[in-house]
Amino acid sequence: MQDSLKLIPGNSLITATPEEGRLLAVTMARLIIKATQPDAGIRGRLRSVYSEDAAMLIAIGQTVATEFATISAANNYWKS
Amino acid sequence: MQDSLKLIPGNSLITATPEEGRLLAVTMARLIIKATQPDAGIRGRLRSVYSEDAAMLIAIGQTVATEFATISAANNYWKS
Amino acid sequence: MQDSLKLIPGNSLITATPEEGRLLAVTMARLIIKATQPDAGIRGRLRSVYSEDAAMLIAIGQTVATEFATISAANNYWKS
Amino acid sequence: MQDSLKLIPGNSLITATPEEGRLLAVTMARLIIKATQPDAGIRGRLRSVYSEDAAMLIAIGQTVATEFATISAANNYWKS
Amino acid sequence: MQDSLKLIPGNSLITATPEEGRLLAVTMARLIIKATQPDAGIRGRLRSVYSEDAAMLIAIGQTVATEFATISAANNYWKS
Amino acid sequence: MQDSLKLIPGNSLITATPEEGRLLAVTMARLIIKATQPDAGIRGRLRSVYSEDAAMLIAIGQTVATEFATISAANNYWKS
Repeated sequence: MQDSLKLIPGNSLITATPEEGRLLAVTMARLIIKATQPDAGIRGRLRSVYSEDAAMLIAIGQTVATEFATISAANNYWKS
Repeated sequence: MQDSLKLIPGNSLITATPEEGRLLAVTMARLIIKATQPDAGIRGRLRSVYSEDAAMLIAIGQTVATEFATISAANNYWKS
Repeated sequence: MQDSLKLIPGNSLITATPEEGRLLAVTMARLIIKATQPDAGIRGRLRSVYSEDAAMLIAIGQTVATEFATISAANNYWKS
Repeated sequence: MQDSLKLIPGNSLITATPEEGRLLAVTMARLIIKATQPDAGIRGRLRSVYSEDAAMLIAIGQTVATEFATISAANNYWKS
Repeated sequence: MQDSLKLIPGNSLITATPEEGRLLAVTMARLIIKATQPDAGIRGRLRSVYSEDAAMLIAIGQTVATEFATISAANNYWKS
Repeated sequence: MQDSLKLIPGNSLITATPEEGRLLAVTMARLIIKATQPDAGIRGRLRSVYSEDAAMLIAIGQTVATEFATISAANNYWKS
């Protein structure tokens, strides 16, 4: 992994709103893939695979859901 | 991802009832797929795949369960 | 999804006993599949597939386990 | 599902020890499979499949881990 | 399952350190596989399969992560 | 598993920042794979497989998400 790669933008799990927390979950999931496969060309090719594969799209949703669970709890669910 | 895409309708995890929370879980899971595959035509074709595939239907259920866990905790399980 | 579909019977996660909570977990998992594939004939055909497929039966168990975790916490584990 | 099927032996998540809690997790995972496939003959045949399939054995472990997480929390991790 | 099989060494989730907790997570995951497939010869053959299969190694990591989450919480994350 | 293998660098889940916690999650996930497949040559060959396989990259992300959930909670989400 590249030492300079940022895995969490802003180095914080705290966001102003649930929507921003959801975007952070998507970004964090993507940055792990980027860290594991740093080659942008290969990632682009893989994207054309998973974006048209129903099973992989569902699996991406599962990963985002797990990241979002953590972010939501960190923000105490934005309740108050 | 389109910047204008809403990932969480109403920008809140709080719902009046468990049933509404469950619907939100389903919607949030779908919006991640929509964000990853913005082309409605391709999504429609994929839907005809996963809606008749037992393994994928089970996987969708797993994702919804994870989203719902977060929403339920955010609502303190609607207990009182 | 059909607007009139009930995703959580009784619109509550609270049950009298763990056994009832477990049944609710099974039901909630099934209702998501029903919402995603409303055609009873297709669901019947898929059932004959997954009920004889070891990997899918295990996956169903994983989903029920996740739903049950939420229900159990909502009921504070029926401890007192 | 057979109405008379017991999904949680003793109708409780509380156990005396972690070892008993682990056994309960294994049993609960198995009873969901039994509820989904009530035919003992088919289950026996499937068992000969998954017990020699590395990927399925791993998946069973994942399900048991999830059930055990719930049971452990219900018992407040048997800490005191 | 063999009644005498120990599923949790020491019958406790409490460990002195995170490293020991991690080892316990690995052991607990393995003992479930052992309970499901008691034949050491078959397990040895399966090990030669999964130890050279990237997807299965990743799946093992997922299971260990889930077990470790439970152990970590039981130990209140070894924070103080 | 090699007795001397370190599964958690520093033997602690506590990190100064979320970014460092995320790096720890990635490392912990990798060390489980290393413990299961100690041969560096085989791991190198497997890496060339999973780093170009969309489904496996997504699965790695799922595992890291689970590890990170534990680390985040251990650090009380770095909120204050």
